[in-house]
Amino acid sequence: MKKKDIKDILQNVKEGDLEVGQAMDNLRDLPFEDLGYAKVDHHRGLRNGYPEVIYCEGKTTAEIKGIVEKMMDRDQNILATRADEEVYHALQELTDDLEYHERARIVVVQKEELEQSDSKLLVMTGGTSDLAVAEEAAITAEVMGNTVERAYDVGVAGLHRLLAQKDKMAEANVIITVAGMEGALASVVSGLVDKPIIAVPTSVGYGANFDGLAALLAMLNSCASGLGVVNIDNGFGAAYLADSIINQIEQARDS
Amino acid sequence: MKKKDIKDILQNVKEGDLEVGQAMDNLRDLPFEDLGYAKVDHHRGLRNGYPEVIYCEGKTTAEIKGIVEKMMDRDQNILATRADEEVYHALQELTDDLEYHERARIVVVQKEELEQSDSKLLVMTGGTSDLAVAEEAAITAEVMGNTVERAYDVGVAGLHRLLAQKDKMAEANVIITVAGMEGALASVVSGLVDKPIIAVPTSVGYGANFDGLAALLAMLNSCASGLGVVNIDNGFGAAYLADSIINQIEQARDS
Amino acid sequence: MKKKDIKDILQNVKEGDLEVGQAMDNLRDLPFEDLGYAKVDHHRGLRNGYPEVIYCEGKTTAEIKGIVEKMMDRDQNILATRADEEVYHALQELTDDLEYHERARIVVVQKEELEQSDSKLLVMTGGTSDLAVAEEAAITAEVMGNTVERAYDVGVAGLHRLLAQKDKMAEANVIITVAGMEGALASVVSGLVDKPIIAVPTSVGYGANFDGLAALLAMLNSCASGLGVVNIDNGFGAAYLADSIINQIEQARDS
Amino acid sequence: MKKKDIKDILQNVKEGDLEVGQAMDNLRDLPFEDLGYAKVDHHRGLRNGYPEVIYCEGKTTAEIKGIVEKMMDRDQNILATRADEEVYHALQELTDDLEYHERARIVVVQKEELEQSDSKLLVMTGGTSDLAVAEEAAITAEVMGNTVERAYDVGVAGLHRLLAQKDKMAEANVIITVAGMEGALASVVSGLVDKPIIAVPTSVGYGANFDGLAALLAMLNSCASGLGVVNIDNGFGAAYLADSIINQIEQARDS
Amino acid sequence: MKKKDIKDILQNVKEGDLEVGQAMDNLRDLPFEDLGYAKVDHHRGLRNGYPEVIYCEGKTTAEIKGIVEKMMDRDQNILATRADEEVYHALQELTDDLEYHERARIVVVQKEELEQSDSKLLVMTGGTSDLAVAEEAAITAEVMGNTVERAYDVGVAGLHRLLAQKDKMAEANVIITVAGMEGALASVVSGLVDKPIIAVPTSVGYGANFDGLAALLAMLNSCASGLGVVNIDNGFGAAYLADSIINQIEQARDS
Amino acid sequence: MKKKDIKDILQNVKEGDLEVGQAMDNLRDLPFEDLGYAKVDHHRGLRNGYPEVIYCEGKTTAEIKGIVEKMMDRDQNILATRADEEVYHALQELTDDLEYHERARIVVVQKEELEQSDSKLLVMTGGTSDLAVAEEAAITAEVMGNTVERAYDVGVAGLHRLLAQKDKMAEANVIITVAGMEGALASVVSGLVDKPIIAVPTSVGYGANFDGLAALLAMLNSCASGLGVVNIDNGFGAAYLADSIINQIEQARDS
Amino acid sequence: MKKKDIKDILQNVKEGDLEVGQAMDNLRDLPFEDLGYAKVDHHRGLRNGYPEVIYCEGKTTAEIKGIVEKMMDRDQNILATRADEEVYHALQELTDDLEYHERARIVVVQKEELEQSDSKLLVMTGGTSDLAVAEEAAITAEVMGNTVERAYDVGVAGLHRLLAQKDKMAEANVIITVAGMEGALASVVSGLVDKPIIAVPTSVGYGANFDGLAALLAMLNSCASGLGVVNIDNGFGAAYLADSIINQIEQARDS
Amino acid sequence: MKKKDIKDILQNVKEGDLEVGQAMDNLRDLPFEDLGYAKVDHHRGLRNGYPEVIYCEGKTTAEIKGIVEKMMDRDQNILATRADEEVYHALQELTDDLEYHERARIVVVQKEELEQSDSKLLVMTGGTSDLAVAEEAAITAEVMGNTVERAYDVGVAGLHRLLAQKDKMAEANVIITVAGMEGALASVVSGLVDKPIIAVPTSVGYGANFDGLAALLAMLNSCASGLGVVNIDNGFGAAYLADSIINQIEQARDS
Repeated sequence: MKKKDIKDILQNVKEGDLEVGQAMDNLRDLPFEDLGYAKVDHHRGLRNGYPEVIYCEGKTTAEIKGIVEKMMDRDQNILATRADEEVYHALQELTDDLEYHERARIVVVQKEELEQSDSKLLVMTGGTSDLAVAEEAAITAEVMGNTVERAYDVGVAGLHRLLAQKDKMAEANVIITVAGMEGALASVVSGLVDKPIIAVPTSVGYGANFDGLAALLAMLNSCASGLGVVNIDNGFGAAYLADSIINQIEQARDS
Repeated sequence: MKKKDIKDILQNVKEGDLEVGQAMDNLRDLPFEDLGYAKVDHHRGLRNGYPEVIYCEGKTTAEIKGIVEKMMDRDQNILATRADEEVYHALQELTDDLEYHERARIVVVQKEELEQSDSKLLVMTGGTSDLAVAEEAAITAEVMGNTVERAYDVGVAGLHRLLAQKDKMAEANVIITVAGMEGALASVVSGLVDKPIIAVPTSVGYGANFDGLAALLAMLNSCASGLGVVNIDNGFGAAYLADSIINQIEQARDS
Repeated sequence: MKKKDIKDILQNVKEGDLEVGQAMDNLRDLPFEDLGYAKVDHHRGLRNGYPEVIYCEGKTTAEIKGIVEKMMDRDQNILATRADEEVYHALQELTDDLEYHERARIVVVQKEELEQSDSKLLVMTGGTSDLAVAEEAAITAEVMGNTVERAYDVGVAGLHRLLAQKDKMAEANVIITVAGMEGALASVVSGLVDKPIIAVPTSVGYGANFDGLAALLAMLNSCASGLGVVNIDNGFGAAYLADSIINQIEQARDS
Repeated sequence: MKKKDIKDILQNVKEGDLEVGQAMDNLRDLPFEDLGYAKVDHHRGLRNGYPEVIYCEGKTTAEIKGIVEKMMDRDQNILATRADEEVYHALQELTDDLEYHERARIVVVQKEELEQSDSKLLVMTGGTSDLAVAEEAAITAEVMGNTVERAYDVGVAGLHRLLAQKDKMAEANVIITVAGMEGALASVVSGLVDKPIIAVPTSVGYGANFDGLAALLAMLNSCASGLGVVNIDNGFGAAYLADSIINQIEQARDS
Repeated sequence: MKKKDIKDILQNVKEGDLEVGQAMDNLRDLPFEDLGYAKVDHHRGLRNGYPEVIYCEGKTTAEIKGIVEKMMDRDQNILATRADEEVYHALQELTDDLEYHERARIVVVQKEELEQSDSKLLVMTGGTSDLAVAEEAAITAEVMGNTVERAYDVGVAGLHRLLAQKDKMAEANVIITVAGMEGALASVVSGLVDKPIIAVPTSVGYGANFDGLAALLAMLNSCASGLGVVNIDNGFGAAYLADSIINQIEQARDS
Repeated sequence: MKKKDIKDILQNVKEGDLEVGQAMDNLRDLPFEDLGYAKVDHHRGLRNGYPEVIYCEGKTTAEIKGIVEKMMDRDQNILATRADEEVYHALQELTDDLEYHERARIVVVQKEELEQSDSKLLVMTGGTSDLAVAEEAAITAEVMGNTVERAYDVGVAGLHRLLAQKDKMAEANVIITVAGMEGALASVVSGLVDKPIIAVPTSVGYGANFDGLAALLAMLNSCASGLGVVNIDNGFGAAYLADSIINQIEQARDS
Repeated sequence: MKKKDIKDILQNVKEGDLEVGQAMDNLRDLPFEDLGYAKVDHHRGLRNGYPEVIYCEGKTTAEIKGIVEKMMDRDQNILATRADEEVYHALQELTDDLEYHERARIVVVQKEELEQSDSKLLVMTGGTSDLAVAEEAAITAEVMGNTVERAYDVGVAGLHRLLAQKDKMAEANVIITVAGMEGALASVVSGLVDKPIIAVPTSVGYGANFDGLAALLAMLNSCASGLGVVNIDNGFGAAYLADSIINQIEQARDS
Repeated sequence: MKKKDIKDILQNVKEGDLEVGQAMDNLRDLPFEDLGYAKVDHHRGLRNGYPEVIYCEGKTTAEIKGIVEKMMDRDQNILATRADEEVYHALQELTDDLEYHERARIVVVQKEELEQSDSKLLVMTGGTSDLAVAEEAAITAEVMGNTVERAYDVGVAGLHRLLAQKDKMAEANVIITVAGMEGALASVVSGLVDKPIIAVPTSVGYGANFDGLAALLAMLNSCASGLGVVNIDNGFGAAYLADSIINQIEQARDS
């Protein structure tokens, strides 16, 4: 399309329908507008149900409602993260096609059927208090079209519970580990399986935890290689990275 | 093999060659030894030239030499990271099949031909001072069998240089961005392409850089999603994570 | 029991009641399940009244109630830490056998008589504001079957009050020192008596206290040796460590 | 005026109307009072509408009202920053000539017509959540007599949006960039245009953002030179610095 | 020039000398190459002697020599910052037109006469230990064509020395204040004069100075508005920002 | 008195009224009790009105009321710091002889006339927002019998206001400087007068102020010697230190 | 002995051999000297070979030699920690009865036979780089008379190696876990066995490890209870705490 | 003198010897020069031997030599702090009247007899490693004319050693406590005596000591009031503050 625009301009110049000066004016903004192409998603954008995303924190309910309303024009699925109940009720006024995932604080407006990847994503947590972040990751990944498995409350202090997940770990293509406190889950899992692992520190804990800093540092300093760390409590970011890895895998599978 | 051991024990019990008490003694350590299987690499271990790794920092030259010598018995390629020239010369006494990558501080003992993945890994740096870390990543990835492209010194302060890498970025399956100072490269690249991006903060900078902390925090807080961050200066870890992602892609391609 | 399971499998194989293949399937999950035995408590588990523990922070009252209800099936004592009054009232609906320690924010469901160790644990605080944390430690230790002595508000700024505790200190087998602000209590006590000392920094203070960091660092850097430090405000953890030390002492006494 | 005072004293001494002792008493406080002249603003103070400023945070509504009342005696415009709605309503009781900029949390009491500089100030933000800080800067600058252009939500993750601002950037004499999270906007803008850039980190973000620290460090460590950084969320300070730069430019223009 | 290229292409297409396909190929890289124009310096680049800059830290002497050699082809002045004596001697082998500013650790290769701005830059320091950073700023600014005044060792602990600089402060268009320890110089100067002030914290000090952090925080939190802060010890950055402000002033003066 | 006790015991032993064994029992606790004498205040304790102190933060209103009630038995003046209005009203139920200093959050129960030292204490603040902390210092010092002068809102950004306090500074024996933000007041005052200066950082400010850390570090790193720093917002501690200095001065004056 | 002194004084008073005044003079220093008894070690001091300790860091070789020489008068074993080879050679001039533990940086002067406790101490490390700290702990404990078992390089990234230590863990009375990087070893071990565990963070690692801070925070925040943490790299402190626990156990065993 | 200058001017004007215009020129710089009087030391400057001070750190030996040479013109005593042996030898070339205090790193050039205050300063340290800082304080105070007592190595881990200093503590007018590690000395001393106490944290320690931060925070958060804290390792600053307190005491004594 863009390329076609340039071609049209040149064609018109060639055919004398467009003056050189005018053509230059038309080309003038090319550098910037053309950049839009940079982010074409050769595969992902074509999948059914791939959502538009809105991050609700720091926006008023009115603003969120307005943005979602505009998004709905495009008839795509919508993923609203960090959404509280008030946001949910406000969006109910716009459509009935929506679901509220309370633990994950996510509202999904579903216009199209969700597709499911062949690749598998496993989301694991150290404790039950890490659930909110884990669910943000899991739901986000699902709405982006990924097949998600869960293994919660399998922290390293009870190693047998963790080892009992070996089948799930063996079947996963990508693993997200969510843990607070000393954040050792990622290291131990990374020592058990040879998969891309995304480590999400949570702010769960107190005292010298310093709002997730302890877990964050632990994950960055893991003695086990192969970990990619995201921001504290950033379940969405972990899911997004997982999705972009799975996207590459799916493309390879399809090729 | 392990499985065969258990089978043999059971078979012996069945055939009366082994007493139940003895069999129990034999099975006693199973839980732990058997875990060894957990880390089987269904694909990677079979590739030609996949190396064993030794991290040299904090080890004496004598210790390193001893470990490498033992590794050489198994006739595999060897990757020695954070190796200075002294280590290189010590290892020269063991074999001629080795190469020293000075910038990357890596010694490679190459016994088998290196295979090359179809997937592509792109390693980018913000500045020339990030080269040491970037080369640690690039050489590590190559020795692990990956096809690596480089795009160095393309930091965000000279946007045109970065944008000139669009083809390389478009072709890559995974991108490693290496940057110090304010570490903005990862964010900008992540905004341009929809690929898994591994962000490596470097300790390049001074003052309020606090030995890489500034870049690390920047990458963890990126407004662009889809980044997995590793420890400051951890080129090896970035390569390892990239390799494990590409491993999944290659398996999908082969399936 | 576990051992018996393996024996049964082997016996059945021997007697031809079980095929080798089936036996292998049965043994397959052994490594993980079997690990459950690792944490047998040769002494402690057998004492009367040894409680199950639930940490309430970050759980909803409904969740806590559900967990406690399930715990009550096993007829053991229950220790609910970081429990507020709302939790207490919710648990009152389940049973009458419960007590609320307001200062310690602990609910105890007592099904069995509490035993008392011969060994003595002394809990000391620097000030009255450290009471909540100290009581969490003291009550926890008592419910775990330990004999607890208290010496509160004996901070180093009034040395004579501290020195007046010499008899209590001399009789204790283990001492827990709880202090905020500059956290010097542990150092001074450690200089006076030659006992295992567990140091609990509290978040009591303001300004450059940085929520307990000052006391934490002071305890970690004590010029007096023999201190084991736990997390800020972690009265429970201190009691648990004290209990596991006393457990060793009691076993030696019984042997 | 001051000089005249000294001259008068000397003249009186000369003419015998004033004793040396009395003259010395009169001169005694000169050092301090005279300093008042130091801050004369040869240009700015003369512009129409240049406001007096009151920072509302940490002051009671009553105190603010009292201060503004006193300021109003001098018939100058007044700029009240960090003012909430309560302050606005309280000030409404004093005058009708006031306007409330809700996003910027600024109340302006306008007694004189606002002048407008020939020089242009461009205020840019990375995201919509940076708006409050950006508007504090923009409104402050306007009330101080500057011509302000806005370019909001043009963060580096969507580079084409940022590049589309090239005309505005080219026309500006001074640019204020407001960004939270990883704060890369300042670096990228500084790489595009050769203008004085004032970088304002915001506390927008979460987790390892540490209330704006990540953005602050990023801006201080920018690989692009020519940035002056102000405190986190300090929109007012950025505007004040911009105004003092533009002040110099306007003086040069008039000369 | 760039514009002319596009015009030529279009002209050639119009005149049939260039096929549309070929023209598209030629235009293909425009977006990126064209960006080069973004940083045109309408005024500064035309001044005599405006230098190219090389930051020596983290580069080997050989690399620096190589880069400078290449720069010398363009016959421009060259500014090498953070250069030690070894670098100086290596560059002496390339040319005689160079000067070494030892305190500033700067080597200047002077090919063209330096111009001097009408605007004045004043560089002030709190103590003598801040001289290295201050000289880096002063020399950099001079080589960029600015008229620089110095007022060193005028820290706030000796207020009379500072106040004695009133004439220099009054005459300056921009002031750079360089200070370590508690970094109060910027605040006091900012309270005295109404000019753009660039504050450079230095790492001078010890103990709770934390390598310049104390001074950095002080400057960011100044009660006096109108300060732009740069990184710790970043004399070059301060000069660069000052130069870009003066650039605007000079343009206004010329207009 | 204490000495008399020992003497009595010895006398009784000598006279045969007390057995050696009993005497030893009596002497047994001497080491500790006797320490009480260590803190005799040869001067201060004898002054009229010297108060007992209670720090209210972290105590319930009931606890505070109880403690104050007990203190009132001894008929001394009482100083309750960090007291809110609720505490004030609760104490009103105990006595009418009390006064509430709202800004200082101090309740004073006055039983005896307050004495006044000949020495003078000057309390200065950088801004009006530092008033609460400054008043805590001033009222505390007054209730301890010191003559207090105040000079508020004389921060370094308006140097003439500060210099106008020269007489007050010259007359003071001890100066307390209270400042938030960049905390430069202490340094500048210390450069002006040669008196013991107690520096109190306040948590006034925002962003990179980090709750008073910036001011604290500035004061610790002052280029001016002769500063003693207390904890952030610790007006009471500053007054206590000032009082103990003045105590020494008064004793010298009386001698 | 002390008690006898007091008795003698009283007896002499009783018998008229000592005047009351003189007796008071004699008693005068009792409070302080008598405190010496506080640290009597009812058990440990009596064991054979219990050493005196000297911490060498920050002392000159001459000073160390002098102190050791004086210690040798008392004919006790001596433990010199943080001793480099130079210290070792200097001490060789004093005696032949000494041994240098290079890895542990410990010199032992052995005058008496070392006793061995029945209780067992297990020292574990995550990696080989933690050996220096672990050996400091192990040698210290041995010289204090403890039976020490070692299990090195059993970090959580290779879980099977760790689980293979189950027998050693089961037999130990106290466990010291030494680990750098993310410091997860303590958590995992604590989840496996119910023993007192002393966690020693090491400064092994780089980047966001911040010289052991990451490991320290991880251990303080362990999700597994029962950990006592000591300072970074403080092998000696860990051994001392272990010894004081074992001391209690041995006393119970003997009772 | 200054006053006399003004008087002379006025007198000359009065007598017609000086024109008003000229008089104004003469008065013009008064504000600043006159400030010089602000720091008159009514007592201290008149004492015999009061020294001029030079802080050597960060200055070259040549610079130090130059400054001292100039100081020697004024025939005053000179105190050079943070001076290493090289500085000492360089200064030996200037005069024979100098002494080098190695531990304190201080060179004293003594031209006049040192006076001694009646007031007493006591300098205490926690350990022997704090000696360098303590001696910097002690020597500085002595050269400033104070009577200094020392009590070293009396840390809180050996309370009896500390308590044995009671007489020295009772006699002192001001106490400086110097301590590293957990820095508890100041708190305990402050609890024992009611004197102004200056607390100096030292960087002695390792690991979580963070170069003196632990001790610094401990002293700022002391539960004992009446402490003034100075920068880490700042023995000079402590002495200077002590001297300014004693100065006030001496003045009171003389009055």
